[in-house]
Amino acid sequence: MTKVYIAIIGVGGVGKEFLKQLSNYITSNRSAPHILIPIVVSRSSAAVVSQDYSPIFLPSALDNLARSTTNPLSFPDEALSYFRGAPGEVILVDNTSDEKLAAHYPALLKNGVHIATPNKKGFSSDITLWDSIFASARGPSNLGGGYVFHEATVGAGLPVLSTLRELIETGDKVKKIEGIFSGTMSFLFNTFAPVGSGSSARFSEVVVKARDLGYTEPDPRDDLNGLDVARKLTILARLSGLNVRTPTSFPIQTLIPKPLESAASADEFLQGLGDYDTAMDELKRDAEAIGKTIRYVGKLDVESGHVEVGLHTFNTSSPIAGLKGSDNIISFYTERYGDNALIVQGAG
Amino acid sequence: MTKVYIAIIGVGGVGKEFLKQLSNYITSNRSAPHILIPIVVSRSSAAVVSQDYSPIFLPSALDNLARSTTNPLSFPDEALSYFRGAPGEVILVDNTSDEKLAAHYPALLKNGVHIATPNKKGFSSDITLWDSIFASARGPSNLGGGYVFHEATVGAGLPVLSTLRELIETGDKVKKIEGIFSGTMSFLFNTFAPVGSGSSARFSEVVVKARDLGYTEPDPRDDLNGLDVARKLTILARLSGLNVRTPTSFPIQTLIPKPLESAASADEFLQGLGDYDTAMDELKRDAEAIGKTIRYVGKLDVESGHVEVGLHTFNTSSPIAGLKGSDNIISFYTERYGDNALIVQGAG
Repeated sequence: MTKVYIAIIGVGGVGKEFLKQLSNYITSNRSAPHILIPIVVSRSSAAVVSQDYSPIFLPSALDNLARSTTNPLSFPDEALSYFRGAPGEVILVDNTSDEKLAAHYPALLKNGVHIATPNKKGFSSDITLWDSIFASARGPSNLGGGYVFHEATVGAGLPVLSTLRELIETGDKVKKIEGIFSGTMSFLFNTFAPVGSGSSARFSEVVVKARDLGYTEPDPRDDLNGLDVARKLTILARLSGLNVRTPTSFPIQTLIPKPLESAASADEFLQGLGDYDTAMDELKRDAEAIGKTIRYVGKLDVESGHVEVGLHTFNTSSPIAGLKGSDNIISFYTERYGDNALIVQGAG
Repeated sequence: MTKVYIAIIGVGGVGKEFLKQLSNYITSNRSAPHILIPIVVSRSSAAVVSQDYSPIFLPSALDNLARSTTNPLSFPDEALSYFRGAPGEVILVDNTSDEKLAAHYPALLKNGVHIATPNKKGFSSDITLWDSIFASARGPSNLGGGYVFHEATVGAGLPVLSTLRELIETGDKVKKIEGIFSGTMSFLFNTFAPVGSGSSARFSEVVVKARDLGYTEPDPRDDLNGLDVARKLTILARLSGLNVRTPTSFPIQTLIPKPLESAASADEFLQGLGDYDTAMDELKRDAEAIGKTIRYVGKLDVESGHVEVGLHTFNTSSPIAGLKGSDNIISFYTERYGDNALIVQGAG
C-alpha cells in the first residue's frame, strides 16, 4: 500500500468539483493499492495545511478553509520545504488559473513534486516556461523529476491530449488539428446559427443568454477575445511539434468590436454589442447562402506551421456544424487516419 | 537503455501493417530509452525465430518467413521456455484471431510474458477465460504477472477502451454505451441509407460493392451475422461491470436471411440475397417516413443489464446517422457527462 500526498490549490468551480470527486474516490477506494492523503487545501488568501501530514477530512475542508486564518504556503521555498517533509510522494493539484503559480512548476518538478492541473498558463505562456517545465519533469535522463499531467488543459475531461500523445508516441504523424475548443463559443454559435432549424436570435441576445446561464465568464469579453481558445491551440500546436512562442504569436480573431474593448463594464459592453448584430447576421446569411454555417474554431496545420483562431464556415452536414449545446469537438487529421479525422467530442 | 523483446504472431492484414509500423518505429527511435528487439515473426505454418535473441531485421522478415521451414513455437511449453531464456522482458503481439492461442494467455501472463493484441477471442469468449486472463495479469496483488493490452479489440486504433477505463478509474459511472462498431456495417448502411442525399441502391448490391472494395470478410456472412459486433460489445459490457457470460448470451440480430445461412458459397449467398431487398427497403422507408434512418448498432445499458446488437432507427441529425464511409462511432453516456455523450469517432 503506497501513500500519496496531495496538495490542492484553488477552490473555484473546478476546485470544488475536484474536491467532491476526490472525496468520493477516497471513500470508495479505501483498499486501493494507492491511498491518497490530502494534506493541503488552499485558496489565494488562506489555507488548511496538515502539519503532521495526516489526512485532511475533505467533507468539511471547505468549511474549515472559510474559517482558516492560516496563510497559504508561499512558493517556492516554504512549499518545497513542507513537501520535502512528507513521508511519501507529493502531487500538487493546481486548480487555479494563476500564471504566478505556474511559473514555479519547474522548481517543484526538479524537486520531485508531481503536478496535475487544468491550469493552462504553464503550458500556453511564453515557450521558455514550457521548455523549462518539460526539462525539469521526469524523463529518461531525469528520473528524479516529478511527473506533470495537464490533460484537462484542453477539452477538459475529454481524452484530447492523451489521444494526441498516443498517436505521436506510436509513430503516427499529425497533419492538421481543427475543432471547437470552448464550451462558450460552442453554445454561442450552436444557438445563433443552429443547423436545420432557423434561429432569429440576434448575436448580442445570445451572448446575454449565455451569460445568464453561466456559460460565460462574468465579463463575456474574456471569452469573446478568443484568448482561451488560443491558449488551448498553443498547447496542441506545441505537442504537435510546432514552435509557438506565445499564445498570441498567431492570428486570433476577436469577437469584441474595437470601440467596445474599452467599455467600462460588462453591462456597458453588452448594451453596445447590439449595434454590431447586423454585421454578424450578414456573416451568418452569407454562409447560409452557400449551404454552410459559421463556427468559431481553432486550426493548426503542421506542415505549413499555420495556426489560427477565428470564425470559419462549415458544411451543415459536418460534425463541427452539427455540434449541440456547449459541447467541444476536436478532429485529428493524421497520416494513419488519412482524410477521415479521428474525432473526440462531448462536454468540455 | 532497456531492451524489450517482441514475439509477433500473425502476418495477415493487421500483422503486415504492424510489422511495417514497428519497423519504422525501430528505425526512427534508435536512441529511445526502450529498445524493441523483434525475436519471433510467425504464421500458422512456419516461423522465423531468433535463437540467440539478436534482433530479427524486419524489412526482410516476411520474405524470410515465406522461405522458412522452421515450425512455429508450440504453446505453451516450448514458447514459455524460449521466452524465459530472453535476456529481458518479452511482449507477445498476437495479430491472429486464433481462439486457441488466446486460451494460452493466462499461462503466458502468469509467467511474466506481456501481451498486446487486437485478437478479440481472449476477451469476448466464455467469461471464465476473461476471469483467468485478468487473474493472471499484473495487478496490485500479482506483481510478477505480465501486462495485458487489448485496446485495439474494440474500435481498432480509436481510443475506446482507454477512454472507458479512464472514466471508470477516475470514479465516473457508465450508464449507457451505444455505437457503430464495425467498419463493414458502417459502410453498408451509410451507403444503403445515407442521410441527406437519397440512394436507390438495393441492399444486396451494396453488400456486393462492399465485398468488391474489400470492406467485408471473403464471405460477407461473417460480417452480416453480427458476431463481430457482439464480441466487441461483450468486451465493453464486461469492462463496464456487466457479467456477460458469452458473446451470444444477449440478443443479436443477424442480417442473413434464414434460408441463406446454409448457402454453399459466398457467391450463392449473394445471389440469393437479392430476394430479400424488398424487406430491407421497407425498413428504410418506414424509418424515413418518421424522419429517421436505420443503422446497425450495439447498445448496452448498465443499470438494466441489457445488451443487444441489431438494427435501430436514429434521427437524421444524430452523430450516428451522420457517420461517413466506414467510420466507427462510440458514444459513452456517463454520470459525469449526463445527456451529452462523450463521443469518439473515426476509422475503425
